[in-house]
Amino acid sequence: MRKVILIGAGHLAFHFYRQFLTCREVNLIQWYNRSLEKIDFAQSKVAVTNQLSQLKTADLYLICVSDDAIKSVSENIQNDGLIAHCAGGVPLNRLCGPSRKAVFYPLQSFTKGRDLSFNKLTFCIETSHPKDQILLEDLAKALGGVTHEFNSDKRAQMHMIAVLINNFGNHLLHLGSELSKKHNIPFHIFSLLIKETYQKALDNGPENSQTGPASRHDQKTINKHLEMLTDYDLKKLYLNLTTSIQKKHER
Amino acid sequence: MRKVILIGAGHLAFHFYRQFLTCREVNLIQWYNRSLEKIDFAQSKVAVTNQLSQLKTADLYLICVSDDAIKSVSENIQNDGLIAHCAGGVPLNRLCGPSRKAVFYPLQSFTKGRDLSFNKLTFCIETSHPKDQILLEDLAKALGGVTHEFNSDKRAQMHMIAVLINNFGNHLLHLGSELSKKHNIPFHIFSLLIKETYQKALDNGPENSQTGPASRHDQKTINKHLEMLTDYDLKKLYLNLTTSIQKKHER
Repeated sequence: MRKVILIGAGHLAFHFYRQFLTCREVNLIQWYNRSLEKIDFAQSKVAVTNQLSQLKTADLYLICVSDDAIKSVSENIQNDGLIAHCAGGVPLNRLCGPSRKAVFYPLQSFTKGRDLSFNKLTFCIETSHPKDQILLEDLAKALGGVTHEFNSDKRAQMHMIAVLINNFGNHLLHLGSELSKKHNIPFHIFSLLIKETYQKALDNGPENSQTGPASRHDQKTINKHLEMLTDYDLKKLYLNLTTSIQKKHER
Repeated sequence: MRKVILIGAGHLAFHFYRQFLTCREVNLIQWYNRSLEKIDFAQSKVAVTNQLSQLKTADLYLICVSDDAIKSVSENIQNDGLIAHCAGGVPLNRLCGPSRKAVFYPLQSFTKGRDLSFNKLTFCIETSHPKDQILLEDLAKALGGVTHEFNSDKRAQMHMIAVLINNFGNHLLHLGSELSKKHNIPFHIFSLLIKETYQKALDNGPENSQTGPASRHDQKTINKHLEMLTDYDLKKLYLNLTTSIQKKHER
């Protein structure tokens, strides 16, 4: 059973905490956060600290802090063992200090207080030593996940694609939800359409699932929509996305 | 039991055909398409024709043809009874001819050969006569759906929002899938992220679900992504969507 120390108390750290408690292969021996307030509740299950200098000796120090804090936190871990950060867009070499280094990035969007299964979750792993690769692969599997080996460059590409899919996708829903409110249309009526859109894209491939006025070059409907959009930014975005679709779906 | 005639043989018409066969409240008495080839297979279940002049007498003529063909098809239906088109972006008054007129628009993206439940499906209904409203509400319920009364203006807004959500959302996945291929990343590893993104937005509201470099004004990551995107159009789109997110999520 591996001794693990969790570092940070953001969305991801909370999910790791809960998952570690139920995972027989993991012995969570300590939880660090710079403010104790956020992790105090866990005292009955695990030792908590707000001093990096007081970290115990562990097999793995799992750093779940904001991208900008990864460097300084890692510099202050003076222990032997493996340190791994969990950020998609941050290279391995952002980690400093004397410990062995790795990346352990789960490809998912975690939210505190929202249940989310680790089953089949993809962990992107990068290490400097082959034995650490095995340690992290075992951990990912023990948590229910699957693993992929990615170097920092490839992981950066993957992170950018995740932004495109997740952040931009959610923003389209946000814009749709605001327009719905403006026109007194209950947004929940779009639920089935939203689910089917993404399920179809996953089943058949998004390149085979495109429909609508842009892909069929229906300029009459496009013009009508542009007239209906009174907000300049929204108009620009509509035009931009329509042009982008039309380049992929020529007449 | 209402006598219904189906007109057209596109994606939606195929789904109506299958659903009508299993619905006790509907008596599908005829199926019209300008080419018999597409509907010949149904001859054992329903009379088929490619002549609008040979349409039988029915309670409802359900027009499921392309937006541009709605006007000319409706002009050529010389029967009494109710004619209804099923297009989100087309006003009621596009229908011509002597019959009573209505719109019966299911808010979903149908694909031939892909199973899709009508359960809880939203039907947007517009009629000129109250008794037709009742007829179409009953039909929607018999099919398993729910109904909303929408006039043509409001339905046009709804249709535009559906384009934003469905067509543009699918396109983002398409762009993500292409980038994945380019960088040898298997696209299926994004599946769980995609599902969670949209489920979270539906559960918590997209306005409460925004994450990523744009919403936290992380200019370092944004610049890095813009450098990584070598395609000019994609760069423009990334910037455009990032700016749009930042306007909704100010520092």
